[in-house]
This record gives sequence, C-alpha cells and structure tokens, in this order.
Amino acid sequence: MDFITSIVLVLITALFGRFLSRKLKQPIILGELVLGAVIGNIFIMVNEGKLVLDPSIDYLSDIGILFLLFSAGLSLNLTEFKKIEKSSTVVATLGVILPFILGYITAEFFGFSHITSLFVGTALMATSVGVKTEVLLELRLMATKLGSLIIGAAVIDDIISMVVLTILISVVRNGYLLIWDISIFLFLVFLFLLIGILLTKEKIRNFLDNYLSKRKLSRENLFIIGVVIALIFSFIAEKIGLSIIIGAFMAGIILGQLNFFRGFQDNVSLIGGGFFIPIFFVTVGMNFDFNAFLSMGLFAFILLIVAILGKLVGCSFGAKLTGFNNRESIATGVAMIPRAGIELILVKLGLEYQIINTEIASAILIMVIVTTLITPTALFTVLRR
Amino acid sequence: MDFITSIVLVLITALFGRFLSRKLKQPIILGELVLGAVIGNIFIMVNEGKLVLDPSIDYLSDIGILFLLFSAGLSLNLTEFKKIEKSSTVVATLGVILPFILGYITAEFFGFSHITSLFVGTALMATSVGVKTEVLLELRLMATKLGSLIIGAAVIDDIISMVVLTILISVVRNGYLLIWDISIFLFLVFLFLLIGILLTKEKIRNFLDNYLSKRKLSRENLFIIGVVIALIFSFIAEKIGLSIIIGAFMAGIILGQLNFFRGFQDNVSLIGGGFFIPIFFVTVGMNFDFNAFLSMGLFAFILLIVAILGKLVGCSFGAKLTGFNNRESIATGVAMIPRAGIELILVKLGLEYQIINTEIASAILIMVIVTTLITPTALFTVLRR
Repeated sequence: MDFITSIVLVLITALFGRFLSRKLKQPIILGELVLGAVIGNIFIMVNEGKLVLDPSIDYLSDIGILFLLFSAGLSLNLTEFKKIEKSSTVVATLGVILPFILGYITAEFFGFSHITSLFVGTALMATSVGVKTEVLLELRLMATKLGSLIIGAAVIDDIISMVVLTILISVVRNGYLLIWDISIFLFLVFLFLLIGILLTKEKIRNFLDNYLSKRKLSRENLFIIGVVIALIFSFIAEKIGLSIIIGAFMAGIILGQLNFFRGFQDNVSLIGGGFFIPIFFVTVGMNFDFNAFLSMGLFAFILLIVAILGKLVGCSFGAKLTGFNNRESIATGVAMIPRAGIELILVKLGLEYQIINTEIASAILIMVIVTTLITPTALFTVLRR
Repeated sequence: MDFITSIVLVLITALFGRFLSRKLKQPIILGELVLGAVIGNIFIMVNEGKLVLDPSIDYLSDIGILFLLFSAGLSLNLTEFKKIEKSSTVVATLGVILPFILGYITAEFFGFSHITSLFVGTALMATSVGVKTEVLLELRLMATKLGSLIIGAAVIDDIISMVVLTILISVVRNGYLLIWDISIFLFLVFLFLLIGILLTKEKIRNFLDNYLSKRKLSRENLFIIGVVIALIFSFIAEKIGLSIIIGAFMAGIILGQLNFFRGFQDNVSLIGGGFFIPIFFVTVGMNFDFNAFLSMGLFAFILLIVAILGKLVGCSFGAKLTGFNNRESIATGVAMIPRAGIELILVKLGLEYQIINTEIASAILIMVIVTTLITPTALFTVLRR
C-alpha cells in the first residue's frame, strides 16, 4: 500500500474509532486501538499480512509518541511534579519489582530455566507510557497532583526498565556483564537527567526567558524551534540508550517553564492530536496479532493475571504508602497496567538467543494486547469518578 | 543518516535560511532553498553524496507541497478566481506554447534530432507551482485578483503539462500514440475537474454547510477530516495521472467555501509552515547538484535564457492581453519562470530511452536550479512595489 493510501486508511480508522468512543462514552484512544486492531487483523486474515502499510508510516508513528510525551511535558505543573518526586519513585520502584518477582516465580513454577524466568520477569517490568499519557491529557489531569504522580512514576519506570534491559542485553550478548559499558551508560543517563533538571532551575529559566524575550518569532518559527528541541532531546536520549519519549518529555518540561513558549502547547497538541498521535495509536492497534490467542494456554493466562496484579498492587500500594487516598492509589495502579515497548525488543532478543520459546513469546504478546486494551476504559472510569 | 537526525538537519537549515531571508529582506523561501542547496552540495562534495538523508524524508516533503497547495486553495477567493478564469487560461496557454516553441527551435538550431527537440521543448513547458504559491501566501496576496490569476494560470499550466507529458510518454514507450489510453485519461481528468467544480456550486455548498452545521467536532477531529479529504483528492489526482498538487488545491478550494471549516486554514498554515512546507523547500534545495554547472556550455546558457524569456514574455503578454496593467502583467510573467516537477521525469525518461544526452540533461537541471533560485527575489520585488 502506498504512503498516501496508508495515511488515509490510518486516519479514517482513527476518526471512526474516535466516533465510536464518543458514542460509547469511552476514552478516544480506546476506539483508535480497537479499530486499529480490527483492521490490522482483517488484513492478517484476508491477505496473510500482504496488504501492509507503507513502512514509512512507522516514522510518523514515532513522531506521534514523541509529540504525545512532548505535549505531556508541556502540560505539566512542575511545582506539583517536584513535590511528588518521592512518591513517584516509590510507586515506580514497587511497580517494577513486584511484577518482576511475580513473573519470575510464575515462569520458574512452569518449569522454565533460570535465565528464561529472568527474561519473563523483565518483560513484565516496564509500563507503556502512551496510553496513560493520552487519557490524562484527554481528561486534562496532566497538571494535577495525581497526573504528576502517574506520569512521573511512568517515566521513572521507563528509565529503570531501560537500564535493566541494557544490562540484560549486555549479559545475553556477551555472556557476562561489561561493567565498563554499563558504567558509561549509567553515567550518561545521569548526566542527561542532570542537564534536564538544571535547565528547569529558576535562575537558568529566568536567564533564558530574559534572553528570549528580546526575540520576536512568527508562530511557525516558534513551532519549528520547539519541535527541533524536542527532536534533539529525543535523539540524545535514544543515542544514550534511553527511549525517545524520555527526551521528548524532558524537552516539554523545559520549554513549558519558559514564557517565550506560552501558547505553544496548544499548537503541539493540535498537530499531535490532529495528525501524528492518532497515527501512533492506530498503528499500535494494527500490530496486535490476535493469532497469538489461538494457542493461549494456562501459562499465558496466569502470566496475564500476574502482569495485571503486579502493577495494580505494587503501584497502588506505593501510592497509598506515600499518602494518596484510595481512589488515587487505585487510579495510579490501573494507570501502570498497560505494557508495550521494551517487551517487543525482549521477545525478539529472547527468540534470537533461544532464551524463550514461541509459547512464552505468544504469552508476552497476549499480555501486551490485553493490558493495553483494558486500561483506557478502566483508567477513564476510575479517574472520572 | 537516521530519520530524526535528517528532520533536525532539515528544520535547522530552514530556520537559519528564514533568519537570513529576514535579515536580507528576502522571501523566506529563498533562504530555505539557498541554504538547502549549500548544505546539499557540501554533502555532495565532502562525502560524494554518501551522507544522505533518510529516504522517508521525501514523504514528509510530499506532504509539504500538498499542504502548501491545500493552504493556497483554502486562502483563495473563489469569486475572484472564477472572474479571471479566462485570463488564467490565456496566460497559461501562451506561457506553455512560447517556451515550448523556443525550446524546440533552440535544440533544432544546435543540431539535435526532431524527437530530442520535442523533448527539450516539453521540458521548458511546465512551471513549478511551489515557489509562487509560497511567495503569494507570504505576502497574503492569495485572495487578490492578481493572486488568483497567478495561481489559476499555474494550475492550468500544470494540468496542460501533465496531459502533454502523458501523451509524450505514451509515444516514447509504445512508439505510437495509444488513442484509447489517452482518451480515457482525458475523460478522467475532465470528470475529476467537473466534480471539483460541482462541489463548489452554491447549492451543493449550502447543502453541505446545512448538513455539517449539525455536527460538532473538536479542533483535532476537524483537522483530521480536512487532511483526509486533501489526501484523498491528491490520491485520486495522482492515480488519474495528474499531480498531487492539483488534488490538494482543489480540496482546499472546496473546503474553503464551507463555513464548517472556518478557522481551519489557520491550522493548516501552522502545521504546514511550521513543519512540512520548510521540509519541502529545503529538500528541493538539497537536490540541486551544482556539479551540473561545471560543464555548462553555450547550449545550456541559451536554453536558460530561452526558458526565462519564454515564460516571462508569454505570460506577461497573456496577462496584458486580458486587461491587467503593466506591473501585474510582469508579476505574472515572473511568477511563471521557475521550473521543477515534470522536468525530472522527462530527464529520467529521456536518458533511459536515449532521446537526450547528458549535455541536455545537465542543461535542463541548470535551468531548473537557476529559474527556481532567481524567482523568489524577483517576484517578491515586483509584488511588493
């Protein structure tokens, strides 16, 4: 399918998905994901996957998730965000450890080897940032305390997971841990986050605002500059070994503090929500291959339950522990349920090095699909109450 | 070079180009083209073209020209546009015939064969729509009588050229003219334009407006719908054998008449001018290989002069003939000078079938580069007076 047809198909799917969501009073993302999955699986059934989208669509999809996190960073209330730093860390840490342990035990229980079980545990670890970000933005909760907690925990979770993943890949590829490589990686991550934090310090912020206030830019050029900054941060984050969303989110936070970029968030959310972000969610849905369910066994079922409970219990408990009320704690737990991101890297790597078999790979894919599809409605319901 | 780096490089080039343009009081497009060409040729020199952009950038560039013409269609004043229909046709026709004849004679004079001379004539025929559209939009002249004349003539010129090109390709490929194929093509072109015209008729417009006024859409969804319509029109235009810009322009005119899409133009120009359109012009510049000038001979020089004079004289005369004053007539002639579009198809085809040699190919490329680079400033100067 050529490029224009691919975009048209994806955007029309998004439109109908959003329409259905509105009719059923669901978050808009649900319709995009579900209709994307339906169309994707029709393709798979009818044409054995031959009628595929132009691969360049994936780039637009990448820009989509980048715009989503950029938008989240811009919408953030930094004061709130800093206040709940500790809570976010507790939520993220518990939400990473519990699913990891549960996944590990489950795999061991089903008789898989030690290294395979480690892999399965790791696959349950990382939350998907996209779904919760979109729902928080839709409900305009990004600037609230709860929004800060959820997005903060998600980002810390993402960083922890990327660090663990990098260590795991190093071990799998080399047979042992390259301490030097990992140290450099950790140092770079630290440096990158430090620079990000420094750039939001009041003194630097005021200096930048002072400097920029003398410039006059057209709306278009301001937009280009903002996007370039987001792209550069994403690029650096990716080169270091973090995910691009960390860079985009950080760029958003930094620009969000500057008076110069006031009104800019509005334009980012328009071009994001009106083009790139729906492309991201629809193509995520289109990649859900329901054939994975055909051979679903007990292991996959237990893994799914464990994946859901691990995040729900771990994160809710973390939130409750740091002073949030019951509803907020449950919302935080629900928000962390969806997975997607490093799982695909893990599955690919695991199959390549024969650490996992296709049964496990399918189980992980089922977990990704189900957790992603149940979260929007669940989170929407808890948050709106 | 990966995708994100490519976009960053292109957008930064655009920013600096715009900055330079502003400093030198030139149209913004000039800086984008020139700086794009400079960066592109540094690549070519230093790395023998090895450091190339990710090919998917071309798709963003396609969306850029599509947004540009979509924007032009939306900004148009249809009443003015319809009033000068006849003038546009006269300008386009004279502006196509004169360069064709001059090109043909020049090639014959230099001793090239009959078919080669036909090719050279055809290569001088089509104007490039992008440059003038951007300058007209920048100077906010799209809704004026003169703007209508220029954009109208450019679009008709584009249609005529695509028809001639299709016939020429048919002859070259088959050795003779496939009357049946060409008839179907012409019929489809006619049908497509007819549908476009019908959709702007007052009755249909009122019906659509009535129907749509009952719907309520978010800014994002309205944007998606508009973009989908533009993409579908572009897609159909391309499938028929016209260029995508005709489809995008027509979609713009149609939506521009509907109250439902009021305010939409603003968003299209933001996402266009703040992302896709600068990518288009910078990559156009980057593809200008200045090596073509190294072997520039008398033929190339004469062809260049003839290309410039052909459009300038033909179109200015056409405008004058239909009642425009001297300044307007000259502006129209200047606006039609730039070439780029079907030339590249012609060069590729001509070399493939050994109808033209590399000398002619270089001469055509030089003509494209020079006419594109001189027009922005010339047009800017004439129009601003």
